[in-house]
Amino acid sequence: MNGTVLYGPRDVRFEEIETPKIMKPTDAIIKILATCVCGSDLWPYRGLQPVNEPTPMGHEYCGIVEEVGSKVRSVKPGQFVIGSFAASDNTCPHCKAGYHSSCVNREWMLRAQAPVLRVPLADGTLVTMTDIPSDNLIPSLLATSDVLGTGWFAAVAANVQPGKTVAVVGDGAVGLLGVLSARQMGAERIIVMSRHAARQKMAREFGASDIVTERGNEGVARIKDLTHGVGVDSVLECVGTQESMMQAIRCTRPGGSIGYVGVPHGVEFDGVELFYSHVHLHGGPAPVRQYLPKLVALVLNGKINPGKVFDLTLPLEQVAEGYRAMDERRAIKAMLRP
Amino acid sequence: MNGTVLYGPRDVRFEEIETPKIMKPTDAIIKILATCVCGSDLWPYRGLQPVNEPTPMGHEYCGIVEEVGSKVRSVKPGQFVIGSFAASDNTCPHCKAGYHSSCVNREWMLRAQAPVLRVPLADGTLVTMTDIPSDNLIPSLLATSDVLGTGWFAAVAANVQPGKTVAVVGDGAVGLLGVLSARQMGAERIIVMSRHAARQKMAREFGASDIVTERGNEGVARIKDLTHGVGVDSVLECVGTQESMMQAIRCTRPGGSIGYVGVPHGVEFDGVELFYSHVHLHGGPAPVRQYLPKLVALVLNGKINPGKVFDLTLPLEQVAEGYRAMDERRAIKAMLRP
Repeated sequence: MNGTVLYGPRDVRFEEIETPKIMKPTDAIIKILATCVCGSDLWPYRGLQPVNEPTPMGHEYCGIVEEVGSKVRSVKPGQFVIGSFAASDNTCPHCKAGYHSSCVNREWMLRAQAPVLRVPLADGTLVTMTDIPSDNLIPSLLATSDVLGTGWFAAVAANVQPGKTVAVVGDGAVGLLGVLSARQMGAERIIVMSRHAARQKMAREFGASDIVTERGNEGVARIKDLTHGVGVDSVLECVGTQESMMQAIRCTRPGGSIGYVGVPHGVEFDGVELFYSHVHLHGGPAPVRQYLPKLVALVLNGKINPGKVFDLTLPLEQVAEGYRAMDERRAIKAMLRP
Repeated sequence: MNGTVLYGPRDVRFEEIETPKIMKPTDAIIKILATCVCGSDLWPYRGLQPVNEPTPMGHEYCGIVEEVGSKVRSVKPGQFVIGSFAASDNTCPHCKAGYHSSCVNREWMLRAQAPVLRVPLADGTLVTMTDIPSDNLIPSLLATSDVLGTGWFAAVAANVQPGKTVAVVGDGAVGLLGVLSARQMGAERIIVMSRHAARQKMAREFGASDIVTERGNEGVARIKDLTHGVGVDSVLECVGTQESMMQAIRCTRPGGSIGYVGVPHGVEFDGVELFYSHVHLHGGPAPVRQYLPKLVALVLNGKINPGKVFDLTLPLEQVAEGYRAMDERRAIKAMLRP
């Protein structure tokens, strides 16, 4: 079969790769109905993270189970399933504590930008649905696999509470779904930092109340202005650069919380500044598996429509155009259909 | 009058300084009954923090009000009072949120290692008592002023919960009172990292269940062993060095919490390691004023005896010996009586 392989900066190829098969008795093989390009895929695509060898890409997926290993119990061929970017056993102490993405048996998913995918630890990783969903629900269900789950975790980690004020740093798909998440959690005021008209519009659709176009210290000053000098209760940091992190720290009120989910690139925290800022800091790779049942239910009940972040849909073989469109900010997020 | 002045590394002098007087109508002047040397005083004493000019020292105190400014309402001459190292108005948004040490009108206290002290924002800063306490309660009441309040905040910031497992990094007075605090909050298992027999003994008296003498990666490995490879739920970081902070991060379970109260000296957090550690991080200068009424009540009711950390009591004029004894770890904490 053909799958997506990154060779180096801006060199994405859709080419012959090995068709996956069961390797361990706890594996499942799924036929992918939809996959997509992640903001984190853009780091190596842009040359900001080394690509030492041709690297299969993709970690967001939903599809139909084709085959399961001999020890798989709860997942059956023919079922519609969604999983997270971190395969997890759902039984270890870290999973039981809700931190599936730190599972002691964790395996990072790769190779999902392809027609067929091997999923390790299938019983723990995959959430099954009783029926095959209608095609119009596929974008929103695919979104639960990572981008919504990550935005949701950012809001949880930032301790978003009803009636409180939230700032979102980053207007990518994760940031936008962080807005949706904060709104679901009852935040009263949601300030989004964005300079991009289409993203500002979508942020407002998801529940943003204010847009700040300034960045850096000016952005911080603007947010302080909007909060009578106090700062916000919660910040969702959805970028992962030093600048975005400092913006997050400096616009949080003492005692407020930052949830950071942008994979850090060159980020260092100065101990003294962090100490005197009095912020709570929590983040990491989102434990999406913890939230999947809840998020899938919100989608199926029509409460949320996170699939709106997919403003470009392409046949899988045009994956390279998906990367280009996101890199050039022509698209917020590209969905790929095999 | 004579007061304590630090001239440079290991050069503490008790010498003539100006007797404080009311400077603003919100000030109070108090006659100090007891003060002490703080672990944080040892940073400049040891030359690990620059001393650019002769610096008056001391920020822990309790005493009797001598005089108040014209706008002081709740504090009256003759009352016994305790305050924190951060003067605060107790009315601004940060104080109302419980972060008095980030008060918009905050003033750091200095000059408390002296017989008389000016306290700014007296109504906000000082907690008054209806009676003058008996002398045997003075050590424990003095402890609430900083060292207990700081240990308490470390435990709050580390989200110590009933039945959970806690590690304490640092066997100074703050760490030891962090043990007391975690025990008060119902922690089941409290692991203290210490190599010092007298401090180990006191840690056990305050409620420690386990002592770990290893440091660095070996200390982390030992704590992982003690927790079946999982890590602890909460860590109180009561030192402020890079080594102690890394120890704290690496022995916390994913999703666990670190409360850090050791003033950071040369500490930098690597964004990537922090991200994948999945820890919650919170700390800073303890908002002691928030906890003072509760902690004073625990002392007066005989529930806690934090004054035990003062294993050396000296006349104030022998303050230099107090610094020496703590520097050489002959004393855990030195109380000074004018």
